[in-house]
Amino acid sequence: MCQLLGMNCATPTDITFSFTGFAARGGNTDHHADGFGIAFYENRGARCFIDNTPCCQSPVAELIKRYPIKSRNVIAHIRKATQGALELENCHPFVRELWGRHWLFAHNGDLKAFEPALRGDYSPVGQTDSERAFCFMMEGLRARFGTHEPDDAALFAAVAELTAQLTRYGVFNFLLSNGRCMLAHCSTRLAYITRAWPFQVAHLVDTGTSLDFSRVTQPGDCVSVITTKPLTDNETWTPFKTGELLMFADGRRQHSEQIAIPEAIQRANRENLACA
Amino acid sequence: MCQLLGMNCATPTDITFSFTGFAARGGNTDHHADGFGIAFYENRGARCFIDNTPCCQSPVAELIKRYPIKSRNVIAHIRKATQGALELENCHPFVRELWGRHWLFAHNGDLKAFEPALRGDYSPVGQTDSERAFCFMMEGLRARFGTHEPDDAALFAAVAELTAQLTRYGVFNFLLSNGRCMLAHCSTRLAYITRAWPFQVAHLVDTGTSLDFSRVTQPGDCVSVITTKPLTDNETWTPFKTGELLMFADGRRQHSEQIAIPEAIQRANRENLACA
Repeated sequence: MCQLLGMNCATPTDITFSFTGFAARGGNTDHHADGFGIAFYENRGARCFIDNTPCCQSPVAELIKRYPIKSRNVIAHIRKATQGALELENCHPFVRELWGRHWLFAHNGDLKAFEPALRGDYSPVGQTDSERAFCFMMEGLRARFGTHEPDDAALFAAVAELTAQLTRYGVFNFLLSNGRCMLAHCSTRLAYITRAWPFQVAHLVDTGTSLDFSRVTQPGDCVSVITTKPLTDNETWTPFKTGELLMFADGRRQHSEQIAIPEAIQRANRENLACA
Repeated sequence: MCQLLGMNCATPTDITFSFTGFAARGGNTDHHADGFGIAFYENRGARCFIDNTPCCQSPVAELIKRYPIKSRNVIAHIRKATQGALELENCHPFVRELWGRHWLFAHNGDLKAFEPALRGDYSPVGQTDSERAFCFMMEGLRARFGTHEPDDAALFAAVAELTAQLTRYGVFNFLLSNGRCMLAHCSTRLAYITRAWPFQVAHLVDTGTSLDFSRVTQPGDCVSVITTKPLTDNETWTPFKTGELLMFADGRRQHSEQIAIPEAIQRANRENLACA
């Protein structure tokens, strides 16, 4: 499977520190060597960097580590392919536009035999179950709200409904953002941390490096980082519950819902995870 | 205004040489210093690098010069803003998905008072006339063909019709690609060159460097390069006629149509160009 990294912040923040630890898992400290991607929102704009070379060797990943892009929402993904060839078109995050916003989506999991009848508003470019799921969600949002962008509460409820339909097909950990908020769902494994004043030193598991956040932050800063496996070993990360969907905005957890995943699916997911 | 660079090839080719000359115009040999973008197709996938810093100083542009990405279709743009702030969301190329393909669009020009009533299939994220024109074209293609992707001849005819509507609003030089073919329209200034066997030495105007293409090519290679101002000074570039729309595929010019631009608009465009 893959690994996910998301960041939602109150003020534009660079993700260089977290990404350095995360990137090491793309073929160095872990075996997710089938490509990677990272996307940053800057105001309404989004930049999406993807590469189908291992993250630990990619010149694009090197650029990201050296070029501190300040963003309020970031999604990154390192790929261990389960479905779809090692082509650029299958690298996450995927991007589509809805309501004049770029939407970004990355998935860690495996949806078995998920072949939705899409209307054609959004069509997959590549061959992954992940991009099919994203197109299904985007079509679902468009079908519910038409051309009128909903508020965060209505958006959250709609994403929860769509997620409940998708979790029946298998492992569906995902990150989804529209540049304002970040939605994160856990069907097997995901954890988050919210860093706010007073900031502390953080120590990366994967590279052994430390950063004293109190030296690079302001009192109003607030940052939530969401990831498959905690990036630091001297802080307390909160594991998501199985089936939990959270919405983060302004750096903090804002909405939550527990999505029921049938017991048979949970059992199959655990077995799938054990094989990954 | 801005400058455009496009490449359409028979076989995957890197654009490092042409981009090096072109990038110098982003604040060095020319004054297009309000951001830049370059996008590459690799099979069905697309990578779009954009930056709202001057191209000649951008770490992203440096990466592109050092990282030879092989592609059959590339679109690049350096920006001299006429409409829209210097934000990332206003950097070209713009990307949207249609018929399971990524479409890329970049514009050099200025469409006055162009405020189309869009259906909402595609909505602008930023504030430029260029992105509005792109959304108008994508909606126009979707409205004509629904969920069925047309062949190249039908696509070309539809783009010609849509272009004729848009040229009434002002200067509309553009490049548009779906990863298979490249469409290029000239309302004021655009030129192209097709390089095929036997390949020659090319000498860049902007950097003074030369490359002997005969040493880095195969007999079957064929590459068309399209740009606002010719990049080399020892080759014969073909200027587009005013109003000409061309489609390139497999590295060669395939379809052409002369779009009638009313004389009053042509006169206003020439005056607009004189001010740029």
